[in-house]
This record gives sequence, C-alpha cells and structure tokens, in this order.
Amino acid sequence: MTSSIQFKILSTSSNTNARRGRLITPHGTIDTPVFMPVGTQATVKTLSPFELREMGAGIILSNTYHLHLRPGEDLVDEAGGLHQFMRWPGAVLTDSGGFQVFSLAKLRKITDEGVTFRSHIDGSPRFFSPETVMEIENKLGADIIMAFDECPPYPATREYIETSLKRTLAWAKRCKASHQRSDQQALFGIVQGGMYADLRREAALSLVDLDFPGYAIGGLSVGEPKPMMNEVLADVVCHLPVDKPRYLMGVGSPDDLFEGVERGVDMFDCVLPTRIARNGTVMTSRGKVVLKNAQYSRDFGPLDENCDCQVCKVYTRAYLRHLLKAGEVLGIRLTSYHNVYFLLDMMKKIRKSIEEDRFLAFKREFYESYGFASNDSE
Amino acid sequence: MTSSIQFKILSTSSNTNARRGRLITPHGTIDTPVFMPVGTQATVKTLSPFELREMGAGIILSNTYHLHLRPGEDLVDEAGGLHQFMRWPGAVLTDSGGFQVFSLAKLRKITDEGVTFRSHIDGSPRFFSPETVMEIENKLGADIIMAFDECPPYPATREYIETSLKRTLAWAKRCKASHQRSDQQALFGIVQGGMYADLRREAALSLVDLDFPGYAIGGLSVGEPKPMMNEVLADVVCHLPVDKPRYLMGVGSPDDLFEGVERGVDMFDCVLPTRIARNGTVMTSRGKVVLKNAQYSRDFGPLDENCDCQVCKVYTRAYLRHLLKAGEVLGIRLTSYHNVYFLLDMMKKIRKSIEEDRFLAFKREFYESYGFASNDSE
Ligand SMILES: [Zn+2]
Ligand SMILES: [Zn+2]
Repeated sequence: MTSSIQFKILSTSSNTNARRGRLITPHGTIDTPVFMPVGTQATVKTLSPFELREMGAGIILSNTYHLHLRPGEDLVDEAGGLHQFMRWPGAVLTDSGGFQVFSLAKLRKITDEGVTFRSHIDGSPRFFSPETVMEIENKLGADIIMAFDECPPYPATREYIETSLKRTLAWAKRCKASHQRSDQQALFGIVQGGMYADLRREAALSLVDLDFPGYAIGGLSVGEPKPMMNEVLADVVCHLPVDKPRYLMGVGSPDDLFEGVERGVDMFDCVLPTRIARNGTVMTSRGKVVLKNAQYSRDFGPLDENCDCQVCKVYTRAYLRHLLKAGEVLGIRLTSYHNVYFLLDMMKKIRKSIEEDRFLAFKREFYESYGFASNDSE
Repeated sequence: MTSSIQFKILSTSSNTNARRGRLITPHGTIDTPVFMPVGTQATVKTLSPFELREMGAGIILSNTYHLHLRPGEDLVDEAGGLHQFMRWPGAVLTDSGGFQVFSLAKLRKITDEGVTFRSHIDGSPRFFSPETVMEIENKLGADIIMAFDECPPYPATREYIETSLKRTLAWAKRCKASHQRSDQQALFGIVQGGMYADLRREAALSLVDLDFPGYAIGGLSVGEPKPMMNEVLADVVCHLPVDKPRYLMGVGSPDDLFEGVERGVDMFDCVLPTRIARNGTVMTSRGKVVLKNAQYSRDFGPLDENCDCQVCKVYTRAYLRHLLKAGEVLGIRLTSYHNVYFLLDMMKKIRKSIEEDRFLAFKREFYESYGFASNDSE
C-alpha cells in the first residue's frame, strides 16, 4: 500500500547514528531531524501560525485528548480539519491521547477494551479505545497520527510493563485495522516496554511486523535518569527499520535533542520551549537565562546576541523582564517566540552539521557554549 | 515660547463642532480626531509595537502611576525613554497618575502639597506632587505629558468639587513651573470641575490663562449619565481655544467617540478595546459580539465581514471562540488586535467624513448599523 508520507535519507553521519532526512507530507516537506512545537489546544501557546511559519516551523503537534474534550473532533471536522480550523498551512501530527489519559484524566479504569476516564475539564465520563481514538484522529485530520497506547510510569515492575505492553501491541493492531484514512494520514506505531531492553526489542519487532510508515519511541523522559533513557533509546533504534522515520515523543531539551539525533532519531516534540518561556526562562547560545533575576533589570542587550530571531533583533532583556514581572502577555509571547525559534534554529544547525559530517564536533561546540559537559546531561 | 508640538485644523464640519486636524509631535504626525490605544505598563496589552504600527496607530498612552511603580522612571530613562524602552517608533502620551492614585492606590492622604499613598503592588509609601510627577514624566520622556490633577468621583458635592478644583488649578501652575523639558515634551492642562458648568468654565479659563499647548477634559465618564457627560463636554469645549488640541480622557466606546468628535474633541484614549477583548467581546460593524456565546461555536465566518484587519482576513469566529474558551493567549491577542483596529479604522472613517463634510450622515449610518439609536447612547 502506498503511504501518504514519504521518507528519504539524504545523508548520514560517519561516526554516529545521526541522519539527515526529508519527510514529505500532504502539507509540506519537512527536513529532519526536526523539532515539532506543541500546539496542545490547536495553538502553539501565545504564537500565531504566521509567526511559526516565519520562524521556519514545518510541522506542529496537537493533542487528541484536549481537542476531543474541547472543541470536539466533530467541530474540527466541520471546520475542514485541524489545518483549516487553526489556519496552519504546514503539517500536523496528533498524539493518541494515551499519555494524557494516564497523566491528566481522573478516575480512569483500564481494560483490554480501552480506558474509561473522566474529563479533567468538566468531569464528564469518556471512553478511549483504539477504535474511538482512530475515529477522533481521522476527524482531526492530521498528516501523521499516533496509535493509542498505554504510557506506563517510571519506575514500574517488569510484570506491570509486560501486561501493559501486551495491551499496547494489541491496540496497535486494532488501530491499524480501524484507521480509515491511510491515503491521507500516516499512522505511526509506538514502541513501549519501559526500561527493559528485551521488552523494548519485542515491542519494536512486533510493530515492525505490522509495517507502519513510521515508529515512535514512547515512555521515555518520564522520570528515569538521562543515561538510562539514552541507553534504552540506542537499543530500540537498532530494531527499527532504517528507511522509516523515528520519533522520540515528548523530548525537547537541547541536550535531549542532540543525544536523540546522535542515536538516530528523526522527530521530536516537547512543550519545553513554550512552558519555560512562560516562567521567564529562555534558552540562549550561552545557556539558560532566568529573566526574572534582578541582574537583568538594567540589561539593555538582546536575549541572545547570537540569535537572529525577531525578538532578539528588537527587544532588550530589561524590557522583556519588565513585561514578565508586570504579568504582561507580550512578555510570554516574545519569550515563547525566541525559545521556539532557538530550538528550530538549533535543529537547522544540527541538520547542516550532519550534511557536512561534523555532527559530533558541532555537538561539542554547542555543549561547551551552552554549559553542558560533553557526554553528560543537564 | 515655541511648543514641541504643532497643531493645525485642516477642515471643519459645517453643522457640528467636529474638526479634522493634524498634530505634529517629535515622534510623528498624528491625524486627528485620534484614538490612542492604552499601553498601561509600556505595552498595549497582548500586542506588539509592530502590530500597532501595522494597524495604523500613531500615538499611544502609557500610565505614569504604573511605570513609576514598575519598572520605575529611572530605569526607563536609562533605557533612553519610553519609546526606546518599549521599541515604539510612534508618539506617546503619559497621563499624570492622578486618576490611578485616586482609584487604585491605598491609604491615600491628600493635602495641597500633594498625595501620599501606598503602592497597590507592594504597599510601599509614595508621594506624588506636581513637582514629583513632572520629574517622573520628564524621565519617561513622552511627547505629551499631563499635569497632575485630582480626579473627583461622581457624584460629589459642589463644596468638594470647589476645593478639589482649586487644588488642581494650583497644581497645574506648579506643573508648568517645574516642567524641565518643554522643548521636547508638550504639557497639557486638565479641566476638572465635576458636573458644574460654572466650575468647568472657571477651570478652562484659568488653564487657558496659563497657556498650555493642549487641554484635556478630565473627570468625565466616571459614572455620570451619558447625556450629562455630553452636556458638560459641549460647555467646556466652548471655553477652550480653537487652535489647540482638545483631549477627552478615558473615553473610548464607539458612541462616546462620535459624541466627543461632534462636540469638538481631537483626542481620546480608553482601555475599552483591549479590556472587552479579554472578556471575549468584540466590536463589529453590526454591534458587539460576545464570542463566548454558544451561537458562535460553529460560526466559520470572520469576526466582522466588513473589517479588513489581519484577524478578520484569516480567522473564524469558531476558532477564536475555541481559543477563548480554552484560555489560550492567542485568543485574547487576536480579539485585542481586531478591537483596537476597529476603533482606529472607525476614527479614520470619521476623519474622512469630516473632510467631506458629511460627519452627521456618517454618524447616522454607523449608529444604525451598530445598533445605537441616533442621538441616544448605549
Ligand atoms: Zn532570539
Ligand atoms: Zn477585524
């Protein structure tokens, strides 16, 4: 069957698993490795689609759980799908809601059939199963949709992970069977298996057997130490096909992106840049800056002297700090803009470094300037 | 003495006091009658200076009381003044803080010398007098600055208003005497006098005697019925010089703007467009729309089919309603943008109608479409 997306590897790193690729979707071509800003409720917090485009975003993520609860998939469908609803001309990926059901929703009850839970907004009872989630994601209309999975906590016993994984794999099969729009939406399987290498391997092989157009690695960055995450990640990638995109879910700190790319990941998403922006923290080429600190009150320089974004070209740290201290929306708008730009720009530089086969050298430079110890994590 | 601003009348209405003018400031030429969006804390809530420029704003208002408390006039001075601090290339007017001291601050004590009060932010003791306010406004560096006045409440006894007015007039004189930068900043006097025609007259004449480059009418729209406001306004304008700009403070609903222009006012400011936007209410050519109402949930048309703003060109009511219901910042950004644009655009049409001497006809058309009864008020 022809997939609605195509993936090509353009170049590879000679001394790591990093690869430079291209993902063709019904809403544009995406250069990989790519960072996808998160637009939970059909908006990347504080930013307009025009601004996202201006800063070079090609694909964003939106959350099935949230959109199902508000405004509901039927309304989005009536609007012509997510792209049309939010006026975003680029590509969209929707998650499956699995993560949110297990982290946000109340009173959940899980069976092999699916999950019964209550909305965190109004307490109304809901039911997610592979079939209902596929129906929702089909209506939302994203270019890439995720299979419904269970995202187990960390730590968890081997027994718990075994039971959970079995269910997730059965659900992946049911998702594939009930997906109605594979000509327009690419369904990715999600590799779970906790921190157990053999279970992760089993998960990868089973999913590859089902032949998805792309594979995600879920259940990482859930509280485990970073070296453990990186080890599991390296193991999982070994068992995934070379010619399909690999997506590490919910990961987006600069070092996580470098470590993921190094191990062969092509796609990432995270709320980090917009979330820390709202707390007044910005990423810069010289590390994090906590703008609310008093030392910046009379700092009339830009957020990052090495950044070319519209915010760094215009505004001062002193003014941005004032806006944040005063609780002004423009403050979180501008810090969000810079932070998302910062990660997109970093990924652009990572892609270039892979093309020029100097990924590790670039990583070393970046870490040094940012203040990470190399081979170390934040 | 040469003023830092120049004001010219370009044309007048033959059957009303409306006039079409031009105000030349150190930061650009302003076509009048003009609506000034309010940027209380050195930002027009949710909007960037670029967006304000894009929608045609030429002058904005900022609040002395708020900026004095945070970030402080010394910091703004160090940044190079308000324009430079907030990166706003147009003109700025700062109020005197009088209104805020009497409405926001706590534990105030008023004497002829000035007002002692406590910051509404941290309770710290502060003192505003004509001299301290001039020093603050000189440091903030706006193109137009306002004399320190007392804004009495409504209703108030004649005795109270008499005492208060005497003080305000004495303060106006002291403001003029202590203003240090009249070569760059035009100081406007403020006509008070409550709802008493003779006191208003006395106030106007006394201020005109002091020869200010412009005159404001304060203490209106403080709770009195609209017909009373319009009557007082018409009386006051009679006593103000024809060749100086007249500024009606704190007024900005569409009908107030029309009624003010009709009586000869040149300048207006109000938080209304951004404040109601944050509550999900937008002004349209067919009247107010309360977006949160369920009837708009599946309305895939623009906010206002007759509006050319960037928001109406792109987004649907259904999407904007979703953003507002979901508490997303983009929602209040976009409704604020439209509302400010709506008033700026309305003023542009008012100016054109005066040039073509069909102001009353345009007013009638507008009221009919908006849903106001003519000669009536909202
Ligand atoms: Zn930047
Ligand atoms: Zn509009």
